[in-house]
Amino acid sequence: MDAAEFRRRGKEMVDLIADYLENIEQRPVYPDVEPGYLRSLIPEEAPEEPETYEDVVKDIERVIMPGVTHWHSPYFYAYFPTANSFPAMLADMLSGAIGCIGFSWAASPACTELETVMMDWLGKMLKLPEDFIAGTHGQGGGVIQGTASEATLVALLAARSRAVRMILASDPQRPETDITSKLVAYSSDQFCATLGTTPSCAFDHITELGPICNAEKIWMHIDAAYAGSSFICPEFRPLLNGIEFADSFNFNPHKWLLVNFDCSTMWVRKRSDLIGAFKMDPLYLKHDHQESGRYFDITFSCYSQSIRFRSLKMWFVFRMYGLKGLQDYIRKHVELAKEFESLVRADQRFEISADVVLGLVCFRLKGSNEVNETLLKRINNGRKIHLVPCQLSGQFVLRFAVCARTTESRHIREAWRLITQLAEEVMQELPN
Amino acid sequence: MDAAEFRRRGKEMVDLIADYLENIEQRPVYPDVEPGYLRSLIPEEAPEEPETYEDVVKDIERVIMPGVTHWHSPYFYAYFPTANSFPAMLADMLSGAIGCIGFSWAASPACTELETVMMDWLGKMLKLPEDFIAGTHGQGGGVIQGTASEATLVALLAARSRAVRMILASDPQRPETDITSKLVAYSSDQFCATLGTTPSCAFDHITELGPICNAEKIWMHIDAAYAGSSFICPEFRPLLNGIEFADSFNFNPHKWLLVNFDCSTMWVRKRSDLIGAFKMDPLYLKHDHQESGRYFDITFSCYSQSIRFRSLKMWFVFRMYGLKGLQDYIRKHVELAKEFESLVRADQRFEISADVVLGLVCFRLKGSNEVNETLLKRINNGRKIHLVPCQLSGQFVLRFAVCARTTESRHIREAWRLITQLAEEVMQELPN
Repeated sequence: MDAAEFRRRGKEMVDLIADYLENIEQRPVYPDVEPGYLRSLIPEEAPEEPETYEDVVKDIERVIMPGVTHWHSPYFYAYFPTANSFPAMLADMLSGAIGCIGFSWAASPACTELETVMMDWLGKMLKLPEDFIAGTHGQGGGVIQGTASEATLVALLAARSRAVRMILASDPQRPETDITSKLVAYSSDQFCATLGTTPSCAFDHITELGPICNAEKIWMHIDAAYAGSSFICPEFRPLLNGIEFADSFNFNPHKWLLVNFDCSTMWVRKRSDLIGAFKMDPLYLKHDHQESGRYFDITFSCYSQSIRFRSLKMWFVFRMYGLKGLQDYIRKHVELAKEFESLVRADQRFEISADVVLGLVCFRLKGSNEVNETLLKRINNGRKIHLVPCQLSGQFVLRFAVCARTTESRHIREAWRLITQLAEEVMQELPN
Repeated sequence: MDAAEFRRRGKEMVDLIADYLENIEQRPVYPDVEPGYLRSLIPEEAPEEPETYEDVVKDIERVIMPGVTHWHSPYFYAYFPTANSFPAMLADMLSGAIGCIGFSWAASPACTELETVMMDWLGKMLKLPEDFIAGTHGQGGGVIQGTASEATLVALLAARSRAVRMILASDPQRPETDITSKLVAYSSDQFCATLGTTPSCAFDHITELGPICNAEKIWMHIDAAYAGSSFICPEFRPLLNGIEFADSFNFNPHKWLLVNFDCSTMWVRKRSDLIGAFKMDPLYLKHDHQESGRYFDITFSCYSQSIRFRSLKMWFVFRMYGLKGLQDYIRKHVELAKEFESLVRADQRFEISADVVLGLVCFRLKGSNEVNETLLKRINNGRKIHLVPCQLSGQFVLRFAVCARTTESRHIREAWRLITQLAEEVMQELPN
């Protein structure tokens, strides 16, 4: 395929994407396939000779779509949202075309620098303490990771490296393996200090944990993977109080801030902690601006070595929505969750299982776990809406997460109508 | 931006991308900016109100392009290639629109299943031992990782987990920390068994290392990040001999197989080794097909938890190029490298510093490191072509890697003309 054909096929693909997203709610949100369905639909080996683009495109509906869980359907209420916006998609197209690998400043200065500046923009939107902002002379700053798990791993390795350096400073002869074998990582059963857990969007008390960590020189990493996006709204920012005690902080704009996956943003109070933990200096990565540009090479310092030009997505989204547009988006999802919560509370057969703080409602039928498990199975087998469960204090609980960008009040009400209709069936069949 | 505007802007972006790639060789391949150049070109904070798309797009040339190292220019000979093809870009657009997160089979069956089948297609192209193919009943199989470093980390953790299980089987009372503190990872100064090192594309003798690893029950991980793509050609497949001793194998189609970043493919002989190392079973990820679908959940088992629909890129590329098209592409790059090698060998002032096996030529002026460092600096300051160095046995060596999809013989000859012209200048100025 040459550039001329790409001009044509690319435009067809743009229409295909717009068609898909405009009509997504007509599709069953959850696929009706059995494991292994796909293998029988395509050949066992790659073709020897090229196929035509038409051949490939018609297989999208035949092979792929029947097996897709449609995360961007307004009837998708499972897990947590994953972001999808048109500005982010446009930026990602450009990122793919530039196709640079930003493992050092010199490997593509724009890639490294835009990332640093976008992390500052976002840090300021969240009103992070000044320590976490790179600016032109700051000691802290942010980098984009692929996932919150990656950010946690990076924080863990940086913490280990800092602890080893601290101990070696007072006891230089001590073998490093002896030090590392004695290090301890403290976590809850959701790991590290979490703002907005996955099961129920619960919040750890970081204003209590923080001072202990600081006094004991424990690296404090805060994970706000889902909830973090909401902190751009002044009314939700208090949830982040205690951030002033943290060494590193992470959340996922690719969840709830309209920046398509992957974009997991991580800030550190001291960039040197990351650089110290991951420094690698092969000759082929050295460049003239190594020293003056050192702080830009923070991206390189983060173990994965190769990174895409991911900050373009942030730049397009932040500019085309503006801070107000992003705040409106967050608030709308929270309002929709509150609307669902009211519907649940108004029905005496149901109960709310955890505080509804943001866009997640944990609820259940009053009664046994069995009846709730059966209800959830019926809901998902209907394929009209999709939810997943969680376990809270031994109870089987249904999670209703407002996810899609296009979810409106009418979808929430339709979902509730379906849930109550199925609940009625289930309660008639089973002893509650 | 709604779907209607996306239809318009998306098509404009397709043209912008085609224009960029068609005219890329007119741009200086290496940017002429100083560290910090970008911060002064854009505001210090995100805008409160939305900006227009026109505002954003015109900043691509004003803000971004001056700081881009153009990896897809036919005059880019630095590092190793990073893939860029039109079919992969089209697939990535679709992947962005579907925007599913494939952390379990149920989270999007098509995503998990296409990945497993594409890994089989590619494994068969490489003629991997049957053990590494999932098929319908195999014990092995492949998963896509983001980078070769991630694959190495995953292999290391799986190896550790297997070693711990082996020792616990014979000594169940032994504390796990006692076992892990005694584990050893063997590596060369390029780490693990490498086929095609980054500095010089050198090959470890895996037919010698392999039997020792097997006899000693050492997990053998083979990293062929760059070279792996060439193994689809029968004439280069012998470089992979010894793979039959490996527990895991990885290479990057996102380097040299026309599948845009990120797509680092990793196979294991026993999927259970990965699943055992990474198993996580929160209730919100359980699904009805958990058991029958277990082997599809191998993707989930790999620590990052969240994955994009990356196999679409492989599917589009393999079908639209066909195996023959991909082989032709590899062979063309190797021929271009051989052509460059001949030009170097025909010039008595230069020497070849390492065997030219694939698309990388390591060469230098006969003489001091200083004269070669000066030559490289002149080359890169010219911004017409871009190379990076490496160090081989204490010598400063220039690396000439054939990288771009559109590189032709005329670009190689033009590059050589420039290099020899600058070499002449340097040799007149400096004692050789």
